[in-house]
Amino acid sequence: MKGVIATRAPRVPVVDVTHGIPPQQILAGALVLRAAVPYFPNGAVHVAVVDPGVGTERRALCVETTDAYLVGPDNGVLSLVAPAGRIRRIVELTNESFFLSPRSRTFDGRDVFAPVAAALATGTPMASLGDERTDLVRITLPAPVRAGATIRTEVIYVDRFGNLTTNVAKEDVPGAITAVDLGGRSFTFPPTVPSTYSAGIPGTLVVVVNSWGLFEIALRDGNAAQQFGVGVGTTLTITLALP
Amino acid sequence: MKGVIATRAPRVPVVDVTHGIPPQQILAGALVLRAAVPYFPNGAVHVAVVDPGVGTERRALCVETTDAYLVGPDNGVLSLVAPAGRIRRIVELTNESFFLSPRSRTFDGRDVFAPVAAALATGTPMASLGDERTDLVRITLPAPVRAGATIRTEVIYVDRFGNLTTNVAKEDVPGAITAVDLGGRSFTFPPTVPSTYSAGIPGTLVVVVNSWGLFEIALRDGNAAQQFGVGVGTTLTITLALP
Amino acid sequence: MKGVIATRAPRVPVVDVTHGIPPQQILAGALVLRAAVPYFPNGAVHVAVVDPGVGTERRALCVETTDAYLVGPDNGVLSLVAPAGRIRRIVELTNESFFLSPRSRTFDGRDVFAPVAAALATGTPMASLGDERTDLVRITLPAPVRAGATIRTEVIYVDRFGNLTTNVAKEDVPGAITAVDLGGRSFTFPPTVPSTYSAGIPGTLVVVVNSWGLFEIALRDGNAAQQFGVGVGTTLTITLALP
Repeated sequence: MKGVIATRAPRVPVVDVTHGIPPQQILAGALVLRAAVPYFPNGAVHVAVVDPGVGTERRALCVETTDAYLVGPDNGVLSLVAPAGRIRRIVELTNESFFLSPRSRTFDGRDVFAPVAAALATGTPMASLGDERTDLVRITLPAPVRAGATIRTEVIYVDRFGNLTTNVAKEDVPGAITAVDLGGRSFTFPPTVPSTYSAGIPGTLVVVVNSWGLFEIALRDGNAAQQFGVGVGTTLTITLALP
Repeated sequence: MKGVIATRAPRVPVVDVTHGIPPQQILAGALVLRAAVPYFPNGAVHVAVVDPGVGTERRALCVETTDAYLVGPDNGVLSLVAPAGRIRRIVELTNESFFLSPRSRTFDGRDVFAPVAAALATGTPMASLGDERTDLVRITLPAPVRAGATIRTEVIYVDRFGNLTTNVAKEDVPGAITAVDLGGRSFTFPPTVPSTYSAGIPGTLVVVVNSWGLFEIALRDGNAAQQFGVGVGTTLTITLALP
Repeated sequence: MKGVIATRAPRVPVVDVTHGIPPQQILAGALVLRAAVPYFPNGAVHVAVVDPGVGTERRALCVETTDAYLVGPDNGVLSLVAPAGRIRRIVELTNESFFLSPRSRTFDGRDVFAPVAAALATGTPMASLGDERTDLVRITLPAPVRAGATIRTEVIYVDRFGNLTTNVAKEDVPGAITAVDLGGRSFTFPPTVPSTYSAGIPGTLVVVVNSWGLFEIALRDGNAAQQFGVGVGTTLTITLALP
């Protein structure tokens, strides 16, 4: 992919955001993309390739948002950073004149998305890339369910430290957290929950608002995912100290 | 290595192709280099360091091909992308004035190959790097053996998804594939072989022509290498549906 | 972090040195930083984020040395490349006008260190970043202990090949090595110690002076750390052939 871009857009700087998305984990890719795009210059071209459906009829897209151009497969990976209210235009990449030829059946990153990104980055109008569309495949994140003093949610992402991100935002939690149930294991935090990685005792749980603005369960100086054998989809209940 | 290049060739863009070649796997490095070079601009300088023989008498080379300049150890890693018909010149890196001084015994990547690449990228004539040679160490890929309706081959590469690349090219397979024997395990594909990652049933084998133009055995949404405990060198027999 | 720098210092080239420091291993980060900085252009800005104490009162620093500007947490990660004799100035990053706002509690790399590095790289005077300090948190490496023909030390770093770096420098070893005791396992090397990776018999130990100028225990074509179940802190005794 970098070779294609170096050839077709030689003066365009390329930035690696991550090569660490686990295989087939479209959700992880979509979350990382949502977290990264706002920090890049407005109007930058972002290519995201988590693409288990390559070679099938899944569409290839370019999505223009108020922030960025997004290029990738239409499998949800682009959707979290492109909420309806921020979309300006969606184009299906149907104009094969921008693709590499021959095109492989297994690596559209190199053969489709990289050359299209190079074209965009060198001034090709988005409209020339293909036909305009009105929808894209969307990932729905599990909504936290509040019931009295508890919030029920699930793990949506595990980072390389084994920290467990939930879909509970800072503003969803009106009080201090006193307990966490993680896949059936209960942890209580008298009197207050440690809210930085290092505030806890080594080996114990902490609950922090992470850099995505979401509550995250971490193990002080450890790997929570490995230690408890949990991962994306594990159910989680947070108990609040309500007045 | 990047620091050396940033110091000696400050305006030359540097691209990371991969840092994921497993330790000592010269063959994997040679295959990835062969796959990457054609997509980069003609005449680019490529440095490849898979170098278990560092510190011994193995030669250090620069190879000019019709496509690129290749810099690295003479252990085969440069050879697959430099078939005889495409070689313009081979120079052994004997001119130590281009090396870092002092030079370590364990990291020619930093001390020899990076500074030589920086020199080439900033216009140093290749002839000044050392003495011209007529040969380089070559890796021989196992040739597929056709016998009636079967093709016998072996796994030559395992990627980070656990997909198993063979040395069987698209044009070696004149008909549909009906069965694969993988290290003694047999898989049949009635009526036709799934030829994209997602065409199979999750958890079952698919056989695709990958982005290198070679047949590859993959596990739908899984890791074939781990699942079957196989790797580079595992024997593989493909059975064709011949008319 | 790269997005922040691309936004605030768009024409400044960014180089990835490593993303492979294991979680929480400040010592490993400090050693890699010490090894990398001398090879980069003088005056370059280096950001190092191994930061288990993020969110606490640990200070954030910029250290100017005779070689470079170092930006990161004050937990020792900057200290090995900044010995007292080479420090020109230490500034605590107290001027929040350079930080991202809002600032998360878990990722100062993005919110503090990247924007400060971008400021420095675009000409912001270091003095404007905060208040001058006179000290920083230091990591102390275990000094090798010589007793007769033996040198007692410990493993200070394990690389991705499983090679075991000690704090014994080339100049600490006046003679040939005849034996190594590694966490209770004894290895003898008659008549001389193999001093390159490939000089040993596959599967046996070699002792090399590595690219950091330190003695390193490696397993020929293998992974010493995994094979012997050893790591940072494992005790090691080297026996010399003294006249």
